[in-house]
Amino acid sequence: MTTKPNMHYADLQESYLFRRIAQRIEAYELDHPGTHLYRMGIGDVSLPLCDAVIRALHAAVDDQASTERFHGYMPECGAPFLREAIAAHYRERGVVLETDEVFVSSGASDELGAMLDLFDASSSAMVIEPAYPAYVDANVIAGRPVVHVPAREEEGFLPEPNESARADVLYLCSPNNPTGAVFNKTQLQAWVDFANACGSVILFDAAYEAFIEGDELPHSIFELEGARTCAIEICSLSKTAGFTGTRLGYTVIPRELVRAGMSLRDMWVRNRTTKTNGVSYIIQRGAAAVFTPEGQRQTREHIAVYKRNARVLMDALDEAGVWYCGGRNAPYLWMRCPDGMGSWDLFDRLLHEVQVIGTPGEGFGSCGEGYFRLTAFGTHENTLEALSRIREI
Amino acid sequence: MTTKPNMHYADLQESYLFRRIAQRIEAYELDHPGTHLYRMGIGDVSLPLCDAVIRALHAAVDDQASTERFHGYMPECGAPFLREAIAAHYRERGVVLETDEVFVSSGASDELGAMLDLFDASSSAMVIEPAYPAYVDANVIAGRPVVHVPAREEEGFLPEPNESARADVLYLCSPNNPTGAVFNKTQLQAWVDFANACGSVILFDAAYEAFIEGDELPHSIFELEGARTCAIEICSLSKTAGFTGTRLGYTVIPRELVRAGMSLRDMWVRNRTTKTNGVSYIIQRGAAAVFTPEGQRQTREHIAVYKRNARVLMDALDEAGVWYCGGRNAPYLWMRCPDGMGSWDLFDRLLHEVQVIGTPGEGFGSCGEGYFRLTAFGTHENTLEALSRIREI
Repeated sequence: MTTKPNMHYADLQESYLFRRIAQRIEAYELDHPGTHLYRMGIGDVSLPLCDAVIRALHAAVDDQASTERFHGYMPECGAPFLREAIAAHYRERGVVLETDEVFVSSGASDELGAMLDLFDASSSAMVIEPAYPAYVDANVIAGRPVVHVPAREEEGFLPEPNESARADVLYLCSPNNPTGAVFNKTQLQAWVDFANACGSVILFDAAYEAFIEGDELPHSIFELEGARTCAIEICSLSKTAGFTGTRLGYTVIPRELVRAGMSLRDMWVRNRTTKTNGVSYIIQRGAAAVFTPEGQRQTREHIAVYKRNARVLMDALDEAGVWYCGGRNAPYLWMRCPDGMGSWDLFDRLLHEVQVIGTPGEGFGSCGEGYFRLTAFGTHENTLEALSRIREI
Repeated sequence: MTTKPNMHYADLQESYLFRRIAQRIEAYELDHPGTHLYRMGIGDVSLPLCDAVIRALHAAVDDQASTERFHGYMPECGAPFLREAIAAHYRERGVVLETDEVFVSSGASDELGAMLDLFDASSSAMVIEPAYPAYVDANVIAGRPVVHVPAREEEGFLPEPNESARADVLYLCSPNNPTGAVFNKTQLQAWVDFANACGSVILFDAAYEAFIEGDELPHSIFELEGARTCAIEICSLSKTAGFTGTRLGYTVIPRELVRAGMSLRDMWVRNRTTKTNGVSYIIQRGAAAVFTPEGQRQTREHIAVYKRNARVLMDALDEAGVWYCGGRNAPYLWMRCPDGMGSWDLFDRLLHEVQVIGTPGEGFGSCGEGYFRLTAFGTHENTLEALSRIREI
């Protein structure tokens, strides 16, 4: 008997999208040393952490230097001070949660992978494509069937539920990565009703909710009736507060989410107490500062900078008559490649001719072919320069 | 069709050991408000982080406040500066690793759970008991068969491999939690040879290696011949540098670890790039400081404090003629309960009569019944006081 590895890894596509992009950039840089590149590709933030968070992080580091205030093991599901701050934040928006329905995580991507553990090994997953590649890859690694539902331009990349979308687990992402499209209440309610009718569980990725303007569009799936019996919401401070490299996310699992008599919330408590020892005290303190009035004001100022970038990009695409969605309530713009060009062709052309890096739509699933993602996370100067370079071609 | 949850959660034992202990303590505190408790139970550290680490953490927080030095997404497998520092640390001990064989994690417990993903769903796991409860629970959650191998007092709680230990994945922990027993080179070589003969993979939990004195006992399984074809080493700064609440671990997967033609190292790269976005930049900077000469000197001073506690406990048990193992090269002492007392009985008696909290051996597996774990992680004053109270009864 020799230990059998998880052979499903062999079923994964050649390489993860962002690694493939990184490899092409590396090759270009080897050939063109010293050339400045305008990065409008991977969705990483460019602004530093806001003052309120920095002060809280320093204070927490000082706690870890003090015998009296030192923190050892943290509660596995999150520090009470942070779970309460997050629940209060939801409450301001009219969503009432128990503190112990909120879980602190190391980030949305970590959570989206780990969460599959709540479902039977045979569970199927529905993914609306184009999609964040990790949704599909995590299910491929687990050997689970993936139901691919294509989104199309004519429906604004926001498909309605129908029989072809039936699956045990339904991934929904709104505001969407990569398309920037956002479900309105009627559209999202249709998915909630569909999930309840089928007995499915929605994994709602709300990582970009902070980019939504106004009160018309739902920030949280729990603003919809019936969501408490069918949905898990996965959120992150990565884009809300610039935590991509600092790492913190949170997850809401309501008590009413029960399948086969088992509470998914209770199962997740057990999962966390078995498989983690909680998130760093220091980072949790920094995260709590995001939810203070000062932290909210400062993080919103940062988001306003990114939204100004998005506005500039939208204006340019409008002017050029290029079809796109997103940008208004999201940091992403999803544009149709000009002249029927392939998305990797556009990637290569922008990289080689004007040194601008975007993300080829094909990397988010085959129905993303012919489209291209631009992000608004750069500095304003870089965004303007990238734009004028794109205009050249 | 209604989504089927992972029903294996229903197979888990009533509740996780440390939660069960916490519940008993809570009940006691409700009845006896304000009473001081002497915690010699859960293995949490009491000393704050050392100066070198605190300085590095503050500097990293400042980086996150600076537009020029800000860090967004980190490499999923770890920052190069930290992977190199860890590889250099191994090199000092004569273990040569490639930097990309070292992975940075959020901690050993997180990694031990996630790592099961590398193996086929039908894989069996061998656990030497008494054992850290999460080994068994993570496998129960995954619905995998567990081969329980009892360790016994007559062999110093360090069993040799034999046919009854055959399994796909072999958990070994040395210095051991909870027994404090440490494999010598001959003993550990026997396990390496056994794993290679069977084609099994050893998950070597080295979280307590920093407590080993001298060069005779192996700190790393990679000090043994043949380990590179059969072992993964999982390590942590929790006990080495007081990171229980700060969170950082590391894992070594050698290139030669191949099963069915698949490199487990390459699979783990793919796992991390799919399921995580790396560990916090701030915490990785703090961790790197542990591996500087100053960080090494300071963390060793902290370990010396805990070892002084262990020495005092050992002397007292020697004097009382109580059988125990551990303490010399580990922060844990594993003692036989006096007068054939049950381990939860001893727990209750110590809590109620002298307000000392230990860990009942039964919580680490049925063959731990009749034994009791004491830890050396308290302050020296508390350890002395707890000891004099234990002496009373």
